[in-house]
Amino acid sequence: MADSKFRRELGQQLRVDSVRAAATAGSGHPTSSMSAADLMAVLLDGHLRLDYEHPHDPHNDHLIFSKGHASPLYYSMLKAAGAIDEAEFATYRQFGSRLEGHPTPRIPPTDVATGSLGQGLPVGVGIAWAGRNLDRLPYRVWVLCGDSEMAEGSIWEAFEHAAHYRLDNLTVIVDVNRLGQTTETMLGWDVETYAERARAFGWHAVVVDGHDVDAIDAAYAAAESTADRPTVLFAKTKKGKGVKAVEDLPGKHGKPLDDPEAAIAELGGQRDLAVQVAKPDVADEAHVFAVDGGELPTWEVGENVATRLAYGQALAALGSIRGDVVALDGEVSNSTHSELFAQAHPERYVEMYIAEQQMIAAAVGMQARGWVAYASTFAAFFSRAYDFIRMAAISRADLRLSGSHAGVSIGPDGPSQMALEDLAAFRAVHGSTVLHPSDANQTAQLVAEMADRPGISYLRTLRGKTQVRTRPDEKVFVGGSRVLRSSEDDHVTLVACGVTVDEAYKAAELLAAVGIRARVIDCYSIKPVDAMTLLTAAAETHSVVTVEDHWPEGGLGDAVLEALAAFSPVTVRKLAVREMPGSGTPEELLEAAGIDAKAIAAEARELLAERHAPVG
Amino acid sequence: MADSKFRRELGQQLRVDSVRAAATAGSGHPTSSMSAADLMAVLLDGHLRLDYEHPHDPHNDHLIFSKGHASPLYYSMLKAAGAIDEAEFATYRQFGSRLEGHPTPRIPPTDVATGSLGQGLPVGVGIAWAGRNLDRLPYRVWVLCGDSEMAEGSIWEAFEHAAHYRLDNLTVIVDVNRLGQTTETMLGWDVETYAERARAFGWHAVVVDGHDVDAIDAAYAAAESTADRPTVLFAKTKKGKGVKAVEDLPGKHGKPLDDPEAAIAELGGQRDLAVQVAKPDVADEAHVFAVDGGELPTWEVGENVATRLAYGQALAALGSIRGDVVALDGEVSNSTHSELFAQAHPERYVEMYIAEQQMIAAAVGMQARGWVAYASTFAAFFSRAYDFIRMAAISRADLRLSGSHAGVSIGPDGPSQMALEDLAAFRAVHGSTVLHPSDANQTAQLVAEMADRPGISYLRTLRGKTQVRTRPDEKVFVGGSRVLRSSEDDHVTLVACGVTVDEAYKAAELLAAVGIRARVIDCYSIKPVDAMTLLTAAAETHSVVTVEDHWPEGGLGDAVLEALAAFSPVTVRKLAVREMPGSGTPEELLEAAGIDAKAIAAEARELLAERHAPVG
Repeated sequence: MADSKFRRELGQQLRVDSVRAAATAGSGHPTSSMSAADLMAVLLDGHLRLDYEHPHDPHNDHLIFSKGHASPLYYSMLKAAGAIDEAEFATYRQFGSRLEGHPTPRIPPTDVATGSLGQGLPVGVGIAWAGRNLDRLPYRVWVLCGDSEMAEGSIWEAFEHAAHYRLDNLTVIVDVNRLGQTTETMLGWDVETYAERARAFGWHAVVVDGHDVDAIDAAYAAAESTADRPTVLFAKTKKGKGVKAVEDLPGKHGKPLDDPEAAIAELGGQRDLAVQVAKPDVADEAHVFAVDGGELPTWEVGENVATRLAYGQALAALGSIRGDVVALDGEVSNSTHSELFAQAHPERYVEMYIAEQQMIAAAVGMQARGWVAYASTFAAFFSRAYDFIRMAAISRADLRLSGSHAGVSIGPDGPSQMALEDLAAFRAVHGSTVLHPSDANQTAQLVAEMADRPGISYLRTLRGKTQVRTRPDEKVFVGGSRVLRSSEDDHVTLVACGVTVDEAYKAAELLAAVGIRARVIDCYSIKPVDAMTLLTAAAETHSVVTVEDHWPEGGLGDAVLEALAAFSPVTVRKLAVREMPGSGTPEELLEAAGIDAKAIAAEARELLAERHAPVG
Repeated sequence: MADSKFRRELGQQLRVDSVRAAATAGSGHPTSSMSAADLMAVLLDGHLRLDYEHPHDPHNDHLIFSKGHASPLYYSMLKAAGAIDEAEFATYRQFGSRLEGHPTPRIPPTDVATGSLGQGLPVGVGIAWAGRNLDRLPYRVWVLCGDSEMAEGSIWEAFEHAAHYRLDNLTVIVDVNRLGQTTETMLGWDVETYAERARAFGWHAVVVDGHDVDAIDAAYAAAESTADRPTVLFAKTKKGKGVKAVEDLPGKHGKPLDDPEAAIAELGGQRDLAVQVAKPDVADEAHVFAVDGGELPTWEVGENVATRLAYGQALAALGSIRGDVVALDGEVSNSTHSELFAQAHPERYVEMYIAEQQMIAAAVGMQARGWVAYASTFAAFFSRAYDFIRMAAISRADLRLSGSHAGVSIGPDGPSQMALEDLAAFRAVHGSTVLHPSDANQTAQLVAEMADRPGISYLRTLRGKTQVRTRPDEKVFVGGSRVLRSSEDDHVTLVACGVTVDEAYKAAELLAAVGIRARVIDCYSIKPVDAMTLLTAAAETHSVVTVEDHWPEGGLGDAVLEALAAFSPVTVRKLAVREMPGSGTPEELLEAAGIDAKAIAAEARELLAERHAPVG
């Protein structure tokens, strides 16, 4: 039998260290950490199998802090496991530190960023699905959830999918400390009702005293020996456990303790216990899918093909070329045509049903294990998962998303089915790529290029057929564009993407009939945009019309305006946040982003110097 | 006892009419309508209390088609109830028709647009909450859900909140027809498991044969007589019921029947039954909250106040001035400071816990009943509800949203808590207003102006304190801006909003020290933007630096670039979708949006004519 006393001591150490971390930082969530300390002590000492010296070993278990604000606890565990030292531990929440206010993959072995509640569990479902069906390794996924986040619908999407796919390698630990940020949760300490809900969703549910290390140990063992269904522990705990000044009291959320020294004394003082975390079994190699090769599909110029169909055909072909490609769809695979991939590679396709948040989260989980995940649904319905996409960027995730049925060109279904904001929303995702091909040959090449593209890549496809104008051997690439029609003395440039390329081409013919020569640019890469081609066209024609099946804000037109701003006699410089921020003081972060007074003044001086304006 | 035979006949009529509607339109979802026809026949004849001649009567029951694709059924009910005639019925999905592919409020008494699954029920929770706690009228809210949408997490947010708030005036009818678009649902016809889930969430759950009109009648009666908890019916049905060519068959989703004439014959032919839908009891008037008046708060210039605190104080004051103001928060009311409203007006505050989708949906439901709803959370977490905000615009909803803790200026919590895409996302919502005040006096005036502003208004507030620069008596308004500093011969213009206004002001002082005169514009209204002030400044200084605590895409910088594009020697015209589309053919909708070939050619000609370029 494991040493209960050691585990209790380790729990106290994790509490003390959580108190210390928040006190040093001057912010953070120590009380939300203290409630889960015993749960994590037992996990670390006896159940987790994770080689912290080799955090990327594919055999490792995964631990996700869905309640990311309990980062003091998470980093205290890393210290106890020897993954970070005391010096780094002391940098919590400081500028430049890997130990941000909420965990991110900057600090291994963290798989994903958390901090927007209700996301860690759905990501865990994705990793568990990969473990069972892709990697085919016996690693377990452990997810620590808060009870407040049980109110997020995404949690119940995860509950349903994990049971449906019988993910017995997934264990969820819910820290039921009863108290949210401002008030008691809807269920308080009613752990039995939580358990009933989980059972109704098909889970093995266990209720446990979250401060009884032996009971916790038994519950983890029960989870490990349960087959065919995931296990959830609803652990009754006290927020701020162990320190009377905060224990189980409202109004103590998200701030350091008033008297950390006294609290540490009450917890028995600082300790320096080291845990030998169990290493994983490395007997088996991760599964590799055999592929039979092949080539991307091409189409003849003049054919009429929907780009969504080209997406499906290209993805299916890519799956034959690469064994690491996986596809997910939100129960519209016959619309997005990811069904072609599903038919060709059924073992690498996951049906996510109508649960877009879970779909994105699962893709994030799979890519954390190195799989090249493509997820598709109607373009409009990615808006359902926008917070997950935002967080995926913070997770430094590589995702490939394909949204079909974009814009008014879908026709009779009406505006609920028409993505008209997707280009803007995806452009405003850090590090994203935004593509909107106009024909099948473009689509296939871009689908292939997305596979190795870092960050969030978004491909917008069309419901209706469009004419293939791009030759099969013509190079199409991220950041490129295609000039359909031009002459040396064009009067005007028409810039279009997707369905409006056809319209722009027809417009050029209408204009030609009245003696106006129009250049037509197919701007299939919207972020990054092909500024050089646009600038050349603008310099030669002085007149540009952009046309897009999208609201006026944030899409093609704005991308073109930005590229062409270089021409204006009014020089405009945009200062904004261009790199992913971390933690720090507001002043440090404004400075690092280059949007503080000094940066503004420097930019203004440089701009004026370049203009040769009178300067002091 | 009601006439069972009439109800069965009415159900058949609704089926026949659903088949006819889709056949005439050439698209639509007849089979998804046919499964629910008996459920709706019994509702219409005997349970719904809705005066279709006075669709906006506050005493009316509400009927929401959460499965909005069953619009053929919905419009067939309107016809049977006499709300529309056969001629209008025949316009289903045609360009200009009020009978769009998915219902919208264009056709009364429809409260909200549906068509993005999993949204109708959460909106229904908002209306039911309003009925019980605001209007205090005995109307009921009936929501028809599909079984596929049970996979959306937002459904379970609604289940939890409706039970928590004991909304016994809410009845949900789930049409368990087993078949989704491409495959069987996760639970198929396992209605008992659905019911267990609902019961675990605190609901009165009934399992019923969805084609047995007497059983349905009894179930509705049970719902009507159940106190203190909402009721859900899980009705086992057959998709395409009544027509062998499609009944309970896969692959029959979302398309007209192959042989509508034969189907109509099989259903017993066309009928012309009229239903006398019961009128509501109009004895009581809707509740009105007494208010004691007062004034908006003001602050002295030079004070340091967080704009989020100003939001809370202004909202609380507004609640004393107007009895129609209601506030919702996602369990962060001590951060957003909506707690000040909650303390002052507890009867008009709703705690939505950490369920942002349900929060927005509830606000949409309340505004459908005429309440002026303000919803707040961290700015970053509105991204969780982006699809709901998108749909709210299609619902023509008036919403006021306040997002706190924007940008890197929040400091140590890290990027998961930093909204850096919110301005872009909200600008790309149709008809939206986007505001980002830099001080408390601006905030209070904008909060008040939002109350009567149509559409989705978004106010971004700051975590940290900023200096009050706006005088209490200075006019602040949507579309305005504020010049902090200027002279007749400025060298450069600095355009800022929110926290960067302080930085820009300090930058101007740094520049002044080296003899550079900088104009500083506080661009607190980002959509609409104050183009005139920007153009004047640009014309006078020729040099502009924009600075924002936001990603570079889609925010302040892009709004300014668009305003200043007028100066460029390269004339750029942006064609995009500027009015809310309806249904129609792709060609009609491209033309109506002004993004088809003809519109492009016309724009190019006009542009060239204005430039006096050589034209043919």
